[in-house]
Amino acid sequence: MRITIARTAGFCWGVRRTVNKVFETSAAATTPVATLGPVIHNPQTIEKFEGQGVKVYQQVEDVPEGTTLIIRTHGAVVPQQALAKDRGLPVIDGTCPYVKFPQVMAQRLSRDGYHLIIVGDEKHAEIKGVASYAEGPYTILKTGEPIPDLPGVKKVAVISQTTNDATHFKAVVAEAAVRFREVRAINTICYDTAERQTEVRELARSVQVLIVVGGRMSANTRHLAEIGAEILPPDRVHHVERAEELEAAWFEGFEEIGLSAGASTPDDVIESVAAQIDTFAAGGAERRYHQPSFTPTHANR
Amino acid sequence: MRITIARTAGFCWGVRRTVNKVFETSAAATTPVATLGPVIHNPQTIEKFEGQGVKVYQQVEDVPEGTTLIIRTHGAVVPQQALAKDRGLPVIDGTCPYVKFPQVMAQRLSRDGYHLIIVGDEKHAEIKGVASYAEGPYTILKTGEPIPDLPGVKKVAVISQTTNDATHFKAVVAEAAVRFREVRAINTICYDTAERQTEVRELARSVQVLIVVGGRMSANTRHLAEIGAEILPPDRVHHVERAEELEAAWFEGFEEIGLSAGASTPDDVIESVAAQIDTFAAGGAERRYHQPSFTPTHANR
Repeated sequence: MRITIARTAGFCWGVRRTVNKVFETSAAATTPVATLGPVIHNPQTIEKFEGQGVKVYQQVEDVPEGTTLIIRTHGAVVPQQALAKDRGLPVIDGTCPYVKFPQVMAQRLSRDGYHLIIVGDEKHAEIKGVASYAEGPYTILKTGEPIPDLPGVKKVAVISQTTNDATHFKAVVAEAAVRFREVRAINTICYDTAERQTEVRELARSVQVLIVVGGRMSANTRHLAEIGAEILPPDRVHHVERAEELEAAWFEGFEEIGLSAGASTPDDVIESVAAQIDTFAAGGAERRYHQPSFTPTHANR
Repeated sequence: MRITIARTAGFCWGVRRTVNKVFETSAAATTPVATLGPVIHNPQTIEKFEGQGVKVYQQVEDVPEGTTLIIRTHGAVVPQQALAKDRGLPVIDGTCPYVKFPQVMAQRLSRDGYHLIIVGDEKHAEIKGVASYAEGPYTILKTGEPIPDLPGVKKVAVISQTTNDATHFKAVVAEAAVRFREVRAINTICYDTAERQTEVRELARSVQVLIVVGGRMSANTRHLAEIGAEILPPDRVHHVERAEELEAAWFEGFEEIGLSAGASTPDDVIESVAAQIDTFAAGGAERRYHQPSFTPTHANR
């Protein structure tokens, strides 16, 4: 039996970076450490953070004096960052650089007099943060929503939620190009999600059974399993949260096993799933990494 | 009988402005007057220019010393303008302000480090002029042509030929938005052509016979007649160059006559056609202007 692991399986680059920051900071800290909002929804990681004494606060107002505060991957709204500064809290900025980019552009473009159009979900933490950087009028457009009437507006700037699909961003920019005198579009989409989906599609074509690891509530993980089930018979695609869920019967009579994982799945969970599959193979499974047809922007392995 | 004349019939705003400049300049001039290339392809207007002694030269090299040189609506390439200046020729810039805008933007955006994408016809005088303002690399894309590979290019600016259709411009901007980190699109399309077409469509719906006036070689005039023939029976739509071509039989039994004209058709030719129709109506025709459903950017009447 052979296990082929997707190169893009697991943590996206930005999440990995921030999770590492939390571990490093809490290991070295002489003060209490907290994050502003949960860094990740993965329960195993949250447990580990708690084990190191890292607390989670929803707002800066609740953070005790002298606590080192880590801003999560999604970023934070400007007033909360200002309050942390005013209170003199030591702040470590864990904002993903791919999220920092639309934040900086939102500020710069609105200062330059552009009406800002943010393509994204207004309820999403990243978008709340980005919008708070605008220093002028802005409009948030969720997927499929048309650009509203913007009387008197001559120039607009369009930016996107980093995890959004390119299709809607493209449509909004096209519409804006003929609705306004000038449109300045900054492509702020991070290709991590798209690349993980492309690779699982390729992987599913080259294996007999596909295992996708990640939280059942994780939309991006579920979507990976759905893509797999479009290619393989659905009863040969299994979405699991942890190794204990695997059943020996899934692998009987099959030689080629594929393995991918969602953006919030830690490496050790992926590793434990691979190790569990090993126990189902006579003499252990061979293990290798998938070679996607493209070069992933941030391969995990 | 009633003649309804389109508000957008005839000269576009930019052509009218430059033609007036030629007449005013030649009337007041104490020096010879010439244009750099023909201002307009309409034979009646060319004859009038010649009657006032206005010469046409294809290049500045050929213009005699001391001649006042008028740059036409389409603009001129930078080296030719520089040569006229070096030679000390008095220059009157008849470049349409709607063409000046993409010229200025081509210069500014290429100075700012954008790779320029010009949507238009590389053989067209306007596009040659606009491209000559670029101070960096540029690509000219004719209708339907995809954006070529542009290795290393991170930010592009898109501008359009003023007379182009918006559809292709929109498609190019959409493609650029996902191909490059940044796209800055300046909508340089002049809506004159589109508005003239929209109005003739409305006019054709409200009349029984449609007369379109303009040169037989004028693509925009022919297109007006084609639009009319999509709505009215084709044998009730007539494209004429001058009043003498009109036939009484075309109007027999009809009461509602529509009249429009291409962008290079002078007012007096339109007027003579209307006057000729008058002679076919018992007791003369009533005359009025069409009320389009929109407010034309530059109505002629």
